[in-house]
Amino acid sequence: MEFETVIHNGTLVTMDARLRIIPSGWIGIRDGCIGAIETGVPPVDAPRSVDADGGIVMPGLVNTHTHLPMTLFRGLADDLPLAEWLNDHIFPAEARFIRPDTVRWGTLLACAEMLLSGTTCCCGGYFLENDVARAVSGTGMRAVLAQGVIDFPAPGVPDPAKNVDQAAAYARRWLSANPRITPSIFCHAPYTCSDATLKAAKAAADEMGLLLQIHVAETRQERDRAIQEKGLSPVAHLDSLDLLDRRTLMAHCVWLDEHDIAIAADRGCTVAHCPESNMKLASGIAPVAALRSARIPVGLGTDGCASNNDMDLFGEMATAAKLHKVASGDPTVLGALDMLKMGTIDGARAIGLGDSIGSLEIGKQADIVVLDTRAPHLTPMYHPESHIVYAAGGSDVRHVFVSGQPLVQNRRLLTMDIREIMDRVNNIALEIRKPWI
Amino acid sequence: MEFETVIHNGTLVTMDARLRIIPSGWIGIRDGCIGAIETGVPPVDAPRSVDADGGIVMPGLVNTHTHLPMTLFRGLADDLPLAEWLNDHIFPAEARFIRPDTVRWGTLLACAEMLLSGTTCCCGGYFLENDVARAVSGTGMRAVLAQGVIDFPAPGVPDPAKNVDQAAAYARRWLSANPRITPSIFCHAPYTCSDATLKAAKAAADEMGLLLQIHVAETRQERDRAIQEKGLSPVAHLDSLDLLDRRTLMAHCVWLDEHDIAIAADRGCTVAHCPESNMKLASGIAPVAALRSARIPVGLGTDGCASNNDMDLFGEMATAAKLHKVASGDPTVLGALDMLKMGTIDGARAIGLGDSIGSLEIGKQADIVVLDTRAPHLTPMYHPESHIVYAAGGSDVRHVFVSGQPLVQNRRLLTMDIREIMDRVNNIALEIRKPWI
Repeated sequence: MEFETVIHNGTLVTMDARLRIIPSGWIGIRDGCIGAIETGVPPVDAPRSVDADGGIVMPGLVNTHTHLPMTLFRGLADDLPLAEWLNDHIFPAEARFIRPDTVRWGTLLACAEMLLSGTTCCCGGYFLENDVARAVSGTGMRAVLAQGVIDFPAPGVPDPAKNVDQAAAYARRWLSANPRITPSIFCHAPYTCSDATLKAAKAAADEMGLLLQIHVAETRQERDRAIQEKGLSPVAHLDSLDLLDRRTLMAHCVWLDEHDIAIAADRGCTVAHCPESNMKLASGIAPVAALRSARIPVGLGTDGCASNNDMDLFGEMATAAKLHKVASGDPTVLGALDMLKMGTIDGARAIGLGDSIGSLEIGKQADIVVLDTRAPHLTPMYHPESHIVYAAGGSDVRHVFVSGQPLVQNRRLLTMDIREIMDRVNNIALEIRKPWI
Repeated sequence: MEFETVIHNGTLVTMDARLRIIPSGWIGIRDGCIGAIETGVPPVDAPRSVDADGGIVMPGLVNTHTHLPMTLFRGLADDLPLAEWLNDHIFPAEARFIRPDTVRWGTLLACAEMLLSGTTCCCGGYFLENDVARAVSGTGMRAVLAQGVIDFPAPGVPDPAKNVDQAAAYARRWLSANPRITPSIFCHAPYTCSDATLKAAKAAADEMGLLLQIHVAETRQERDRAIQEKGLSPVAHLDSLDLLDRRTLMAHCVWLDEHDIAIAADRGCTVAHCPESNMKLASGIAPVAALRSARIPVGLGTDGCASNNDMDLFGEMATAAKLHKVASGDPTVLGALDMLKMGTIDGARAIGLGDSIGSLEIGKQADIVVLDTRAPHLTPMYHPESHIVYAAGGSDVRHVFVSGQPLVQNRRLLTMDIREIMDRVNNIALEIRKPWI
């Protein structure tokens, strides 16, 4: 038994098929993968030995829906209706300030925030995605990254007639460029992409075996308009175009009825649930318990920082757990372990990476987070899974590994100059802050 | 102008009547009170000079409803219905493990957690409150602390016939013992206290000019049973006993109708809103917008740690802001400044301390929190109030002052030995963890 890294003296919350929790154990990492996961004390030395100090060792969290560069617009406009927020604030800001350099710094800020708060993998879509992917590459983070497709002129895509071709060219470039980056294609929504665009995007994604992401049924207005104009719900409309299968990730899915859920379950597609964004924009509450009952993989997403306003998945787990209890009137629904599954293994499945990440199991990538539990708000600890969901926050993350590589050590980023990133983003924000509309 | 402490180089979020935000200013503290609040650079030196380092300087948060020693039961039992959670877990655990020594350590843990996360004042009720008040006294924190009254044998009150007398005796002892501790009386609920008990408790509180606290209409069952048994809603029932006036704080108030709200507004009583606890126990969503429209002072509370499971009021503000948006379908309700009012000045009013704390104003007690905003999740910053509510957490708190006394400096507690407190609570938890039912 030889390992490059051993993490010891921790409570291992594995999220494996049996949801094993090992009160005091260790993990051995070899070739970036988990090579051993055992109770007790490691019998071997390793070049890198990490003392978890009695804390919780868990799989890195998986953010299944976000838009990385939107950190630039964090808190720019709050407490507004979705249409006004998008049309009067976000779309104009994007048209004016989204450039390769701003995308780069906004993306790096997002990666810094995610890694520091225990997210090791994200699934995002935006424009100028080649710049996004280059920035993420340098951080060591894992990501599924999609070029956005929309039937309007967009940053980097002045001619919407070329939107799918550009997305396909981006994806092809990243097919085997970096094992931690998986390209994808992101159609903005059924109401902003024509049927022809949707079908072309799906064909391009299918040709390369990639995930197609799309916002679906985020608001009641969207659903009502689809039914009025096409006689079909957004899900049924996408299904009529043969768009739904196990490589289709539908984000939001707030306004789904039983028929929609049956379609999604039958086609095998997956869902990204974004509770905080849906709450803040008053979009509604997605039928998560019903989706899970239908065996649809549902992950959690923060959405972009313009609507949330942070990227802390611990907060998202806590909010979701409580939201669905009060919405259903049943305090037993979506308990701590269910929510932790959504934040880890189910999220990994939702973005097509369930075989390689999302749990602490031998053979999987060593995407691992160590929480510091020696804090007043985590004392005492009766049930680790309860603390992860109901009491911990991203600020309790002490160490983070992706493919066995340490990216955060004692709360410090190892692959990024966070001061420079914050300075650069603050300078961009000075530009954005000026009156410009 | 002479000050004992000057806090400078910060964005001052005053929460005064005009909700002034001073982008770069300073505060002078004299005799524990705010003596100056100005834009620019302080013109004088002071023995203690605190550089806010460009961060946010704001009033300390006010937790209007909690049960301090319940930190001992943090996460002991989750995801259960209220009655089962109370009757099968919490009440038996209290009967067995609530003693003067456990109350002391649980209370100190709560104070540590609150101070570290920016809460400078709390309003709580529990049993053995004399031990609670003694523990809080040593920390320097401000608190309204009530001895609990319930018509069953309780820890320290074996004979329920003496419950009000004991509560009154406790309150009298603390009337002028410590300027930061205000005694109070806490009747558990209209369904656990007889009419005679309620009236006697109110008379005792009135005699000393103290706040009466009571859980009201927390669950639909409570309201339905009150209507069935007494023909009156819980609020109307309390009103029929002359229990409601401006020195009555009603906690929860989830199941209030228009008539109840009109009664509460007319009598001048106040409300503690506990969104996370109400969500987690699936109790329901309090009509906060309607209560505020009726000009009822509504503060925020974490409730006890057995039901929440933390005491971070930043999280409570974020959750409440989003909850009421999605519940009403209106993203414009309870915006960031409304929520910040609830967490500060409105909370202070709700517990009877609106004249002395809750905002940064000349003459008020210097209960002040400094946030470190140089962090990825708080970058960039367009609107400080948005960040406080939607992006910051208790872990962003850097300095905390109560009556001008520094209690937290660079994230470290100055008046408590946090290691000893956590060790003691962990030892108590070992006892609680053993199978004992």
